[in-house]
Amino acid sequence: MNNNNNKTKTKKAELPLKIIFLGGVGEIGKNMAAIQYEDEIIVVDCGLTFPSVDMPGVDLVIPDFNFLLNNREKVKGILLTHGHEDHIGGMPYLLKELTKVPVYGTSITLALTESKLKEHRLDGYSLNSVRAKSIIHLGRFFKIEFVHLNHSIPGNCGMCITTPVGVVFMTGDFKIDYQPIGGTAIADLGRIAEIGNHGVLCLLSDSTNVERNGHSLSESAVGKGLNTVFLDNIERRLIIATFSSNIHRLQQIMDLASKYKRRVAFSGRSMINVADIASKIGELKYDRDIIVDIDRIKDIPDGNLVIITTGSQGEPMSALTRMSNDEFNKVAIGDNDTIVLSSSPIPGNEKMISTVINNLYSKGAKVVYHSIAEIHASGHAFLDELRLMLALVRPKFFIPVHGEYRHLQKHANLAIDMGVVVKQNIFIPNLGDCVEFNKNTMQRGNQVQAGMLLVDGLGVGDVGTVVLRDRKLLSEDGLFVVVLGIDKHSQEITACEVTSRGFVYMKETEDMIRGAKKLVTEVYSRLDQKELADWNLLKNIIRRELKSFLFRKTHRNPMILSMILES
Amino acid sequence: MNNNNNKTKTKKAELPLKIIFLGGVGEIGKNMAAIQYEDEIIVVDCGLTFPSVDMPGVDLVIPDFNFLLNNREKVKGILLTHGHEDHIGGMPYLLKELTKVPVYGTSITLALTESKLKEHRLDGYSLNSVRAKSIIHLGRFFKIEFVHLNHSIPGNCGMCITTPVGVVFMTGDFKIDYQPIGGTAIADLGRIAEIGNHGVLCLLSDSTNVERNGHSLSESAVGKGLNTVFLDNIERRLIIATFSSNIHRLQQIMDLASKYKRRVAFSGRSMINVADIASKIGELKYDRDIIVDIDRIKDIPDGNLVIITTGSQGEPMSALTRMSNDEFNKVAIGDNDTIVLSSSPIPGNEKMISTVINNLYSKGAKVVYHSIAEIHASGHAFLDELRLMLALVRPKFFIPVHGEYRHLQKHANLAIDMGVVVKQNIFIPNLGDCVEFNKNTMQRGNQVQAGMLLVDGLGVGDVGTVVLRDRKLLSEDGLFVVVLGIDKHSQEITACEVTSRGFVYMKETEDMIRGAKKLVTEVYSRLDQKELADWNLLKNIIRRELKSFLFRKTHRNPMILSMILES
Repeated sequence: MNNNNNKTKTKKAELPLKIIFLGGVGEIGKNMAAIQYEDEIIVVDCGLTFPSVDMPGVDLVIPDFNFLLNNREKVKGILLTHGHEDHIGGMPYLLKELTKVPVYGTSITLALTESKLKEHRLDGYSLNSVRAKSIIHLGRFFKIEFVHLNHSIPGNCGMCITTPVGVVFMTGDFKIDYQPIGGTAIADLGRIAEIGNHGVLCLLSDSTNVERNGHSLSESAVGKGLNTVFLDNIERRLIIATFSSNIHRLQQIMDLASKYKRRVAFSGRSMINVADIASKIGELKYDRDIIVDIDRIKDIPDGNLVIITTGSQGEPMSALTRMSNDEFNKVAIGDNDTIVLSSSPIPGNEKMISTVINNLYSKGAKVVYHSIAEIHASGHAFLDELRLMLALVRPKFFIPVHGEYRHLQKHANLAIDMGVVVKQNIFIPNLGDCVEFNKNTMQRGNQVQAGMLLVDGLGVGDVGTVVLRDRKLLSEDGLFVVVLGIDKHSQEITACEVTSRGFVYMKETEDMIRGAKKLVTEVYSRLDQKELADWNLLKNIIRRELKSFLFRKTHRNPMILSMILES
Repeated sequence: MNNNNNKTKTKKAELPLKIIFLGGVGEIGKNMAAIQYEDEIIVVDCGLTFPSVDMPGVDLVIPDFNFLLNNREKVKGILLTHGHEDHIGGMPYLLKELTKVPVYGTSITLALTESKLKEHRLDGYSLNSVRAKSIIHLGRFFKIEFVHLNHSIPGNCGMCITTPVGVVFMTGDFKIDYQPIGGTAIADLGRIAEIGNHGVLCLLSDSTNVERNGHSLSESAVGKGLNTVFLDNIERRLIIATFSSNIHRLQQIMDLASKYKRRVAFSGRSMINVADIASKIGELKYDRDIIVDIDRIKDIPDGNLVIITTGSQGEPMSALTRMSNDEFNKVAIGDNDTIVLSSSPIPGNEKMISTVINNLYSKGAKVVYHSIAEIHASGHAFLDELRLMLALVRPKFFIPVHGEYRHLQKHANLAIDMGVVVKQNIFIPNLGDCVEFNKNTMQRGNQVQAGMLLVDGLGVGDVGTVVLRDRKLLSEDGLFVVVLGIDKHSQEITACEVTSRGFVYMKETEDMIRGAKKLVTEVYSRLDQKELADWNLLKNIIRRELKSFLFRKTHRNPMILSMILES
């Protein structure tokens, strides 16, 4: 027994700490990570991503939770850095399975999370509110301190996680704002310096803006930019689009509304929802009288109104996009409107935003946007802030996260160039990667099951590669369907119906349909007994012949369905 | 007779000059325009656009030529400003119909055009080479002078068109390059000033970069930027992606290759094609020995090779994109490669380009791109150049063209702010608009038939709104097909087959298929004689019931095809 005990002890000392990357599509090392030591796991964030253009029809994308579900008794807690969709949006799907696992986050983060859990009609979960500087213990091995960092949402924290092997510092999404808006705190640089001084095993740091030189704009500078917009548009109606979760931005707009004697109307479901949640917990402060329902704005003079709306990314169903298309019956855009896009385009949305701006201009409105005025600040650290973080933390090992591959690579090069970390102590993670640490070593562990689950309607994970490939094929050249009725006794064709969708105009289609019917009948008459007996073979032959017939006629390759009905 | 003659004369003096906008999708007033006086029409440019994301499967988009075809005997000539796809790409489709109409352009413009006409196996056309300062007369009414302007392709000209009503000056695409690359000329500012001094009725000017302050970068500055790249990568293989049509860029790269003793390999069909055409007519000058076939690059040391490739926009089938995906067997990307994107993203392509860059990084390559180095210059005038053009031409009327709506509006505001044109003398055109001029007036005329024809495979114009809508529907939730076999005597169901594509995973589909068969059989058994007799009604009922069944099960709306086979 003693001997055994000793052995276990020795073994224990050698057990590695594992960091496992369970999220991130396109951008790596974000959405979700797990930290494991022995039989205990803690989870940091559980976000979703929005589908890319090659996932038509998909509503959202969540991480594959299988690793956690297979280790469900080991999961001691879920830590949330902040309340953005890409950090909490997967929570309802995860808590459906791991309902009892305690969740930790600041009050606004938990309030936004809970609103999602309620939408999904979950209960029985355990949400535990923390503040910056809170320290919690999970299991036998983990001590977590929440460290305040600035971001484009209040209540944002990095995590200082003390483990038996060493300290892991995860910045989460962050910037360092020296002049955050009134009453809110600058990132806790003093505490980060202390943590660095005590020695950090591994730093995981946000890489989003590594290609942007200098220091990110302060949120308070945006207030000054918006103040100018209010001043320049005294007689005009103002419509300001921004992210609903950017509560400090909302606060600044509402303060300006109050200053310039404008009433405020919220527009868009998530804007109304977030404003409600944030004001309930005191993160958004305003005089109730300032608010006017969007249905009652008609009576208010243009110069006394500001509409705060969703749609700053040109999202097709958003309030602003519908306004720009005359599809939003509550607000008709005219030449006395000034629309402000207090945002910058998320890569991939440029074209949609541009269309919205053009449509607004064509209605005679003025549009003020990011590239022409200082009305937006990024929530992510620029190069100088990333340097500062590296200089304060001075970790032994470094894992750049939150960014596309090239950003992580550049962040790695930055750490090397600064002399903070040597090249072999840097790891650039991929989805499903596991990194194992001892006090002095870092090495790649075994991959774990990880990936993305596509959520489409009620289905989670029932849309996969094959389904997406078929959707893509269908979208490119459409569909051609041929149905053969065959008499089961005589094996004669009793009927043949052909139809197409998304292929060519009807006029052309009629010729094509006649030709296809003729072809199929001819092909059928040439087949031998063996071919007639095997329906799959028969269907394949018909498909192949039709494919070449249609390509000859049109140079297109529609999806061809051939079906057989025996009677 | 005399009286009549007098009347005609009086009438003639009142006949308006018409400018008709026949092209431009998204960007307005580009691709194609027509100018008409009495029974004579001249055409300026005939370009194509590339399909947007809401046109899946479409290869390209050309203008609707119906106005010209309905007035074919009036068309006196086609003038080409330069050889970019969006100015000449529609020519094969137009010349198929108007084969004999003479075409005018500079030698490189015509060479690029002719290569397209040959691809389409056209002959019998009439291409007439001009130079800058050439003057031609078309019909009784039009005198056209070609005026040299800089752009991202050689042989670019604006058009000074003298008509009985006054002078129309069309800039086409332009910039003013004070230091164009060796031996080529600065935009002909002297001549433009003279034209302005003589009085211009209407200016049509490029608006693309009206949101960019200052003066566009000179093409020769790009040469300096690229020289630095060559110097920084002496031992590494260089792969430079750029537009094949940017022949001055190719020239600079080849000059640098020669200077640094590198052989040049071309990659990508259009790159090889354009290099060949341009060198034949002397627009691209290099020592033949410098060229090496892309199939023979293996033996050449990395430091002695530069590959010039297509794919600077991340186009899915381009050589560079395929290299980044390991799908281009002639070039394997490795950690001794430096890839240069000598281009900037066309709006909408940002995401594709970003993916290519990340993939290249993940293979260990270095990537140098626009946002981090001075290796690309726009071909379109910035704000100061637009000011200069307005100041030189000082037109009576102004039509901003070539840009999205907001750009045209801003260009209009610029002209007003400069005091060059008053607001009521400015017209912002839309596709199909006709503007009518007398010596002192400008007014909107009748719309003409105009629009875009989608080219898909061999079909021109056979993909329209309905087809695109079906493709979009199919791409979002896929397809569900039900086929009923019905006995024509008993009206009993003899068979029922169901299949789906792009909908949900097969496992889930099987349940759904069983359920759908059951449902359809039940629905059928409940129908009365009238419903059974009307197949369209029957199909609709089945579709409606299936739709609500599938939505209940999945919250999705696949396209439902119901077909009936009578036997």
